[in-house]
Amino acid sequence: MEQEAKVTKKVEGIDLSRREMLIGAGALMAGVAASQLGVLNTAKAAQASNGEVWPWPYEKLDPARVGETAYHAWYDVFCSQAVTTGLFEQLREKVGEPWSSFPINSLRFGMGGMLGWGLTCGAPVSGALVIGLVTPAEVATPMVRDLLGWYANTPMPVYSPQNGRYNGEIPKSVAQSPLCHQSVGRWMKTADRPFGSDERRHRCASVTASVAYRTAEMLNDWKDGKYVVPADNWDGAAAMGLPSQQNCMSCHSDGVPSPPR
Amino acid sequence: MEQEAKVTKKVEGIDLSRREMLIGAGALMAGVAASQLGVLNTAKAAQASNGEVWPWPYEKLDPARVGETAYHAWYDVFCSQAVTTGLFEQLREKVGEPWSSFPINSLRFGMGGMLGWGLTCGAPVSGALVIGLVTPAEVATPMVRDLLGWYANTPMPVYSPQNGRYNGEIPKSVAQSPLCHQSVGRWMKTADRPFGSDERRHRCASVTASVAYRTAEMLNDWKDGKYVVPADNWDGAAAMGLPSQQNCMSCHSDGVPSPPR
Repeated sequence: MEQEAKVTKKVEGIDLSRREMLIGAGALMAGVAASQLGVLNTAKAAQASNGEVWPWPYEKLDPARVGETAYHAWYDVFCSQAVTTGLFEQLREKVGEPWSSFPINSLRFGMGGMLGWGLTCGAPVSGALVIGLVTPAEVATPMVRDLLGWYANTPMPVYSPQNGRYNGEIPKSVAQSPLCHQSVGRWMKTADRPFGSDERRHRCASVTASVAYRTAEMLNDWKDGKYVVPADNWDGAAAMGLPSQQNCMSCHSDGVPSPPR
Repeated sequence: MEQEAKVTKKVEGIDLSRREMLIGAGALMAGVAASQLGVLNTAKAAQASNGEVWPWPYEKLDPARVGETAYHAWYDVFCSQAVTTGLFEQLREKVGEPWSSFPINSLRFGMGGMLGWGLTCGAPVSGALVIGLVTPAEVATPMVRDLLGWYANTPMPVYSPQNGRYNGEIPKSVAQSPLCHQSVGRWMKTADRPFGSDERRHRCASVTASVAYRTAEMLNDWKDGKYVVPADNWDGAAAMGLPSQQNCMSCHSDGVPSPPR
């Protein structure tokens, strides 16, 4: 990707300085325990000169409890708010402010890929929000990309609740995308079950729990100074010449157009 | 859509109660000055029994200033954080807390459709976040859908900065989608200009300003008790049998699959 970014820059002659810095950091860290990122672990909520309080303090969470809370919350508030419910619960117990007073019900809009539009799944959107509240941009950028790549390429769901609301077996599917429409649609096709079925609801609750669990796991690793950015950390803008997913042929089945040079 | 939702329910026999309630509210309000939503206008930040402070107080903003601030902020922080920069600036002046201390730099992850992945454009994501902080779910749901539909179907950008950083004319394009990849890609094709060009940067800064302006406009209308939900307020999950955009043929050019029944 470092290579691709340089090629892009050379061909287009564009200002990629900000992106290259992030890519450079990602490439540097790929496959290496990024212990230098842990330097910021001890940061406590501080008020900046502009009045903002950031980063928000983080304490290591029990990922299994995060997942279980998120799973059950899904049945009330759906994916995006359920992820924050799972993560905020323990942060409120262990840290308190600013986690306690932030209104997580304001995040319901992420459900159904923004209220039924099938856009980005609300679970990684809320995971990204918490990552952004806790970590500086040089950590948040590769970590959020990591979460998206993991979501897109992992047979889901990976989390099984202790006390599920559907007791049968459900199949797993690979979303190939962080988009709700593709994630849910591919699973519905694999399972041959409709959107309103108990199985689909259990599936989305379990995917939500999976994302909440994974977010807690990554932030715990970062807190311990052992978060590792994967080598395939995807930046579609650098790789493809405009912001892009990895699955071009999923939509461009009749040929992928070249962006203007 | 009310009709479609009923058909979907009948065919699938699924639990659509929550969604129907929202759709029902939207349908009821369609084309009507929804003055009943204004009842909540006077809400001030209050602490709920669970410790959350919500809704966050809102005072009417100068949309042109919101847009101008968002436009210039884009060149530093890109779309999602630029929208919040434009909206928070005046809210911090006019209201203060909780707007002042919330770290809007935590929202950078929305840029480039989540850090270059080309998913939901970060501008409406941040618009939705502010709408969710200010309004109850029965307002936020149709208003966020309104913002997404307006984004997808309007020739963009609609906002022209007073002091732009590119002085030539640029073409407008209809994104047909709130996704960054489609929004940026369609504009690049229309303009025949690359991602790194001054024109594309000016275009995304102007789209960002347009979304920030429109969000302020809608919230101002709501504050005045005159926010009107458009008749075509889209809920893809109800209309299509799973969360979906309006532009099926954009990806499913070889035929739109039917969801399992």
